[in-house]
Amino acid sequence: MALIVHKYGGTSMGSTERIRNVAKRVAKWVRAGHQLVVVPSAMSGETNRLLGLAKELSGTPSARELDMIAATGEQVSSGLLAIALQAEGLESVSYAGWQVPIKTDSSFTKARIESIDDVRVRADLAAGKVVVITGFQGVSPEGHITTLGRGGSDTSAVAVAAAMKADECLIYTDVDGVYTTDPRVVPEARRLNTVSFEEMLEMASLGSKVLQIRSVEFAGKYRVPLRVLSSFTPWDIDLDEEAKSGTLISFEEDENMEQAVVSGIAFNRDEAKITVVGVPDTPGIAYQIVGKVADANIDVDVIIQNVSHDGKTDFSFTVHRNDFQRTMDLLQKDVQPTLGAKEIVGDPKICKVSIVGIGMRSHAGIASTMFKTLSDEGINIQMITTSEIKTSVVIDEKYMELAVRALHKAFGLDEQKA
Amino acid sequence: MALIVHKYGGTSMGSTERIRNVAKRVAKWVRAGHQLVVVPSAMSGETNRLLGLAKELSGTPSARELDMIAATGEQVSSGLLAIALQAEGLESVSYAGWQVPIKTDSSFTKARIESIDDVRVRADLAAGKVVVITGFQGVSPEGHITTLGRGGSDTSAVAVAAAMKADECLIYTDVDGVYTTDPRVVPEARRLNTVSFEEMLEMASLGSKVLQIRSVEFAGKYRVPLRVLSSFTPWDIDLDEEAKSGTLISFEEDENMEQAVVSGIAFNRDEAKITVVGVPDTPGIAYQIVGKVADANIDVDVIIQNVSHDGKTDFSFTVHRNDFQRTMDLLQKDVQPTLGAKEIVGDPKICKVSIVGIGMRSHAGIASTMFKTLSDEGINIQMITTSEIKTSVVIDEKYMELAVRALHKAFGLDEQKA
Repeated sequence: MALIVHKYGGTSMGSTERIRNVAKRVAKWVRAGHQLVVVPSAMSGETNRLLGLAKELSGTPSARELDMIAATGEQVSSGLLAIALQAEGLESVSYAGWQVPIKTDSSFTKARIESIDDVRVRADLAAGKVVVITGFQGVSPEGHITTLGRGGSDTSAVAVAAAMKADECLIYTDVDGVYTTDPRVVPEARRLNTVSFEEMLEMASLGSKVLQIRSVEFAGKYRVPLRVLSSFTPWDIDLDEEAKSGTLISFEEDENMEQAVVSGIAFNRDEAKITVVGVPDTPGIAYQIVGKVADANIDVDVIIQNVSHDGKTDFSFTVHRNDFQRTMDLLQKDVQPTLGAKEIVGDPKICKVSIVGIGMRSHAGIASTMFKTLSDEGINIQMITTSEIKTSVVIDEKYMELAVRALHKAFGLDEQKA
Repeated sequence: MALIVHKYGGTSMGSTERIRNVAKRVAKWVRAGHQLVVVPSAMSGETNRLLGLAKELSGTPSARELDMIAATGEQVSSGLLAIALQAEGLESVSYAGWQVPIKTDSSFTKARIESIDDVRVRADLAAGKVVVITGFQGVSPEGHITTLGRGGSDTSAVAVAAAMKADECLIYTDVDGVYTTDPRVVPEARRLNTVSFEEMLEMASLGSKVLQIRSVEFAGKYRVPLRVLSSFTPWDIDLDEEAKSGTLISFEEDENMEQAVVSGIAFNRDEAKITVVGVPDTPGIAYQIVGKVADANIDVDVIIQNVSHDGKTDFSFTVHRNDFQRTMDLLQKDVQPTLGAKEIVGDPKICKVSIVGIGMRSHAGIASTMFKTLSDEGINIQMITTSEIKTSVVIDEKYMELAVRALHKAFGLDEQKA
C-alpha cells in the first residue's frame, strides 16, 4: 500500500462527464490498495469567468477579494469530485485550503505555502476515505483566503505530497510527459522516462511549460517523487502501465536514471536583445542599467557584460519582446545621458536556445559541440551564457527551428530508446 | 450614527451592473454616517447551477459536499460586492461564514445558527470599513461548511443583526413590503407600514412568502427590528424616504402601531384534505395515523379531530396536493385495516384561507364575523382551526378568491389609510 497524491488540471475537470472519469481513475488506484489524496484545479474556464466578473466592477480590484472569489472555483470542483467518488462507492471528503489547513503567507494572488497540517487528512485516510483538497489556495496567518497564482494547483499537490510524505505525486495533464524538446518543432523529439529536478527547473523556466516552476522547486526541496502523465488515457488502462507512464521527475541520481549528457533542448521565442554600447567600466554600472529597467517592472532575462577595452564596456541583456520599445525609450532617455554611453542598440527579433543536462556537470566539451553544431548550420551566435547544467545562446529568431533540430540531433536525442 | 444590516437577494445581485447599484445604495447609507454590514445572496441562478452539477454526478449527493459547493455562490457575490464598494471609494472587506465565524450545528443543507462571533466584524466597522458577510452559510463545530437551506440568507442577515445589536435589519427584496393579502387576488390589498412579528410568522407560514420564516422567528427571539423593502427603487432616492419605506416587522406593541384587529388575509392553494372516517376513539389514534404519514416524509398541515359518537371519531388533516394520492394509498393499504376505520375519504381540490391579527387576542367575535362573511357569500366551511392570532378555514378551492376578497373587505382592509 502506497500513499499517492493525484493532481488533475482544469481540462480534466472540465465537465461532470470528465469529473466522473477522474473518479473512476482514482477508484482504480484505491481498489489496487493505495491511499489517495486528490488535488483538482477549477473546471476549465471558471477562474477566468470569476476574475472577469471582478474586472467588470473595478479596473483595480482588491487582491484580497480576488482571492476570495477565485478560490471558489477549486472548492466547487473538489466538492463535485468527492460526490463523483461517492457515486463510485468510495468514501470521500473534500477540504478547502483553510480546512486542511494549508497555511500561506499573506501575499494575495501569489501566496507562498508555509506549512500544511496533515492531522485531519491522515485521520481521514486511516478511516478509508479518499481526501480531495482544493488546489491553488490556502489561508493566511490572519485567516484570509489566499491563492498561489496561476498554475498554483501543481504546487498545492506537491506541497501536500511533501507534508504527507507521499510515495509519489502524479500530475495528470494534457501532455503525456516531458520531452527532449517541443515535438511541434522537432518531430523526432522523444518523451523522457526520467528527468532530474534540476533539469526540469531549467526546462520549466525556459518555456517547457509542463509544470509550474514553483512546484518543481518544491518537489526538489522536499524530495517528492513527481510524475507528469497524460489525463487523456482511458481511465481503465492497466494500473501498472499507468504508474510507469509519463515522465518521472526524480531527485535521485540513481543508476537507473538515463545518463544522457544533454537531456533536452529548450527555447524561448519572443525575446528582444538590447545593448548599451561604450559605457565606462566602473562599479555600479550594471545596477544603474538593470535597476532602472527593473524599476519599470520589466523582467530581464539573460544579462551579459563583456571584458572592457580602454575602460569602456558593452552591456547586453534580453527582455520580453512586448517590453522592447519601452525599454529602449527608457534607456535612451534616462540611462544614456547619465552614463555617457555611446549608443543604445537593440534587436527585437532574437530567440534563446538552450541545452540542458545534469550530465554537463561532469562532461567537458558539451558547449563546444553546441557551438560547432550551430556554426556548421551557418548560424551566428549573438550572446552566450552558461550555468552548471545549461548553456544558452541568443540567435536570430529565424534560425530557431533549425538550431533546435540540429542540436537535438547532435546530442543524440533523436534516437528512440526502449 | 446607527449600525444597519442590509440584505440583498439573488435578483439584486444578478449581474455586475446590479451589484454596482447595490454598492451605490450602500455607499449612500455610509455617507449619511451609518455603519453598514451587508449580507448578499448568491447571484440569481447560481445556486441552482451548482446543485445541478452535483445532481448530474449522483442521484444522492452527500449533503456535506452539496454545502461545500453551494456555499461558493455567496462567497463570489460577497467578494464582488466588496470590490464594487471599493470602486465607490469605500473601504470594504468580505467574509465567508467560517471567517466571521457564524457557528452552526452540523445539519448539512439545513443547519441552524448557534452563535456569531462579532469581534472581527466590529473591529472592521470601527476602522471605517463596510463589512460584507456571505448569506446562507456557516461553519459546524467540526469545521465543515454548512448552509442554512433555501432563503437562508434572510436568516443570516437577521442573525448578524442580532449578534451585532444592530439598530435595524433591512431586507431588500423584489416586493415592496408585506401586504394585507396578495394584490393579485385583491387589487385593493394595501401595504402594511408595520406588522407584528407574530402576525408575520403566521403570514409567512401561510404562504406570504416575503421572508423565510426562520428569519422572522430569529428576529422575534432577539428583538431585531426588521424591515422588508424594495430593491427596485432607484439607488439614489432620498435616504429618509427609503428608510421609512416597505414594512417594519416590529416586536413592540407600541402606540404608533396600526391597531387593526385583523392585519391580513393569508391563503394557501394546493392543499388536499383527507378524512379517516369512523376510527375508534382511543389513545394513540392520532399518532398511528399522522405517524405513518410523517414516516413517508409527507408534511401534514391542518389536523382536526372531532368529538366522538358511540366511541368512534373522524380524523381529518390536509397535505400538499402533490402528496394526496400517495397519502390516500398509504392510508388505505396500511392504516385502514389496522385501525378498523370505516373508510378513507379525500378531496384534492380544497384551499385554506386564514385571517391573521394580533388584535384578535383582545377582540371577541372576530371568528364569527369571518364565518358570517363566508356564509353570506354561500361558501361552505369544511374545516376550522384557530390559534391565538389566526383563524383558518378549509373551503372548496373554487371559492378561494371570492373568500379572500370578501374577508379583506369585511375586516376593513380595503380602506386606504395615509
